[in-house]
Amino acid sequence: MTSRAETAPHAEGGRAQIIGTGLIGGSVGMALRSVGWLVTGSDRLDDVAAAALGAGAIDEVGIDPDAELVVICTPSSQVAEVANVILAASSDPRLMVTDVAGVKAPIVRAVDDPRFIGGHPMAGSEQLGVAGARSDLFLGATWVLTPGPDTPAETYGRLLGVVRSLGAQGVALSAADHDRLVAHVSHVPHLVASALMNEAASVAESDAALLLLAAGGFRDMTRIAAGDPAIWPDVCVENSEAILESLDALGTQLAHLRHAIATEDRSAIGTALSSASTARRSLPGRSVDPDQLAEVRIPVPDRAGVLAEVTATASELGLSVVDVDIAHSIEGGRGVLIVVVAHSEAQRYATALRERGFICSVVDR
Amino acid sequence: MTSRAETAPHAEGGRAQIIGTGLIGGSVGMALRSVGWLVTGSDRLDDVAAAALGAGAIDEVGIDPDAELVVICTPSSQVAEVANVILAASSDPRLMVTDVAGVKAPIVRAVDDPRFIGGHPMAGSEQLGVAGARSDLFLGATWVLTPGPDTPAETYGRLLGVVRSLGAQGVALSAADHDRLVAHVSHVPHLVASALMNEAASVAESDAALLLLAAGGFRDMTRIAAGDPAIWPDVCVENSEAILESLDALGTQLAHLRHAIATEDRSAIGTALSSASTARRSLPGRSVDPDQLAEVRIPVPDRAGVLAEVTATASELGLSVVDVDIAHSIEGGRGVLIVVVAHSEAQRYATALRERGFICSVVDR
Repeated sequence: MTSRAETAPHAEGGRAQIIGTGLIGGSVGMALRSVGWLVTGSDRLDDVAAAALGAGAIDEVGIDPDAELVVICTPSSQVAEVANVILAASSDPRLMVTDVAGVKAPIVRAVDDPRFIGGHPMAGSEQLGVAGARSDLFLGATWVLTPGPDTPAETYGRLLGVVRSLGAQGVALSAADHDRLVAHVSHVPHLVASALMNEAASVAESDAALLLLAAGGFRDMTRIAAGDPAIWPDVCVENSEAILESLDALGTQLAHLRHAIATEDRSAIGTALSSASTARRSLPGRSVDPDQLAEVRIPVPDRAGVLAEVTATASELGLSVVDVDIAHSIEGGRGVLIVVVAHSEAQRYATALRERGFICSVVDR
Repeated sequence: MTSRAETAPHAEGGRAQIIGTGLIGGSVGMALRSVGWLVTGSDRLDDVAAAALGAGAIDEVGIDPDAELVVICTPSSQVAEVANVILAASSDPRLMVTDVAGVKAPIVRAVDDPRFIGGHPMAGSEQLGVAGARSDLFLGATWVLTPGPDTPAETYGRLLGVVRSLGAQGVALSAADHDRLVAHVSHVPHLVASALMNEAASVAESDAALLLLAAGGFRDMTRIAAGDPAIWPDVCVENSEAILESLDALGTQLAHLRHAIATEDRSAIGTALSSASTARRSLPGRSVDPDQLAEVRIPVPDRAGVLAEVTATASELGLSVVDVDIAHSIEGGRGVLIVVVAHSEAQRYATALRERGFICSVVDR
């Protein structure tokens, strides 16, 4: 059970375990240490764990059986097995286990324990390994969490608090929605960046002047292609259905542009590029003013999946959930789920929840 | 005729005329003013010229008949006509006329005067109009110049000096090479950024959560799509051949990745993404250490197109020409063309020039 104080940014954290101390694991360790957690780290490779210790990413090498938070940062194909071993070894109901893999459905499907919540911090670096790790890697980043039908609000609220204490914006999605949407905004863009880079490199082989012209726009568009290629075969295979669908949708957009250019249809070219310019300019900013928050209070009905449904409703509306909390009634009993969102969005959110059969009220903070 | 002092960054410039005082014209004006030029500006729209004056982009509104440098920053379809009017009105052999349009061959073909050298500063902004103009827009940017067969080395050297004084790196290319290469590194990347943005916007219509996931990588890849869409119909039509070829080459790369994903060919996925990562990491830096320069000295033979051939040879090798100068022999006569390049590249450059029939020597600076 969580209290308001515990879900606020941790001035003093508890004990955390990182499994896999590369770029992301090392950065999670550094970030947790910076807000007061005692971090123990392990890696399949001894020298990687030792490097993480040397870089200040962890307090010690090993396994902490008393950790309340376990963050699995192994390659994605190993996450489910590691998670199941850790969960089987502990009966502590306060244990939180999460991961950082880029495809969530196969993992969430393979780990059946309410103490596991899938995670995906959408931050990276073109650096490789713990040498590129930074305590501020998650500042301002989106960190997806995938609460399931059995996830207790307490556990989710605590994990959301940890994520937010590292400077990230927590976003709750179902694993399936996450996988479908990241295909569009992350996986396919990465493939396109790689394709652009490979195409340019092939032209540059016979025409080195191309490299002199590789200006800011080209550099922006190919930057992510420099990232660690090792994770991508797993990502592409695990999320192949959504990736192929998104690649084909992009192909349709490109074919439309190609046709407009081949037929010198200036109007169609202008329309396509204008709509892209307008859409890019209206990409929302990421920050929520903490002075402009409201609570949506939902008496928790006795049915499964409430938390997942309530948080997913927010995501479907494009709302960011700032905090989740449970207020237990003094007499005991069901309690009230408190979801904190931007003040300007609270009424829209409450309306959507009511349409889904929830009773709720909005309270200014 | 130019001297070394004149091609060094201008502490005090001369008189310049900007035609078209929008984002790029305004930025050129500001940058020229910051290094001591007196800048007169005109625009087809009176309020645009007045706004440029108000923003400090020009010293006065109007036409300066004594300008030695005219920079045409109109929409590309008007450049050739404007250039021909200006050139016809002046018999001054020291006049330099250049432009900033993104496609060069149609313009260079339509302007037959050795005092005109096509130009393309590869810098932009997602801002629109003179309100987005900045004096430092060209700092570190590549600025392509397209000297032709009749371009005198003096004129080219002076214009290169101006471009460099604004902080840009001058790159000489034939107009045809420029157009072919910018299709790969600028035009197609812009179209792809727009296609990615349009595709994401269409998904977001039914699924607003997508916008919460539009993280750094996606933002990097779509940033250029926010730019002024108005220039693109002209660019796409004027450079359609090269753009279609590059789009098709990119399509082949994407089809290769699609096949690898559809067949779960992890090895092919890994190979493609590894080669992209390696290529992106080895994109060269842009700066040349001024302490590490050498002069390649070429006695100028009596034949047309020497300058264009000499500078294009550098571009073909991926070398950046830092400066171009002419040393006239004391007795009069042919003189020596001096091309300044990075010390580490000078011998390779000299070898390539000799293979093309030039006599040359390398002198350390």
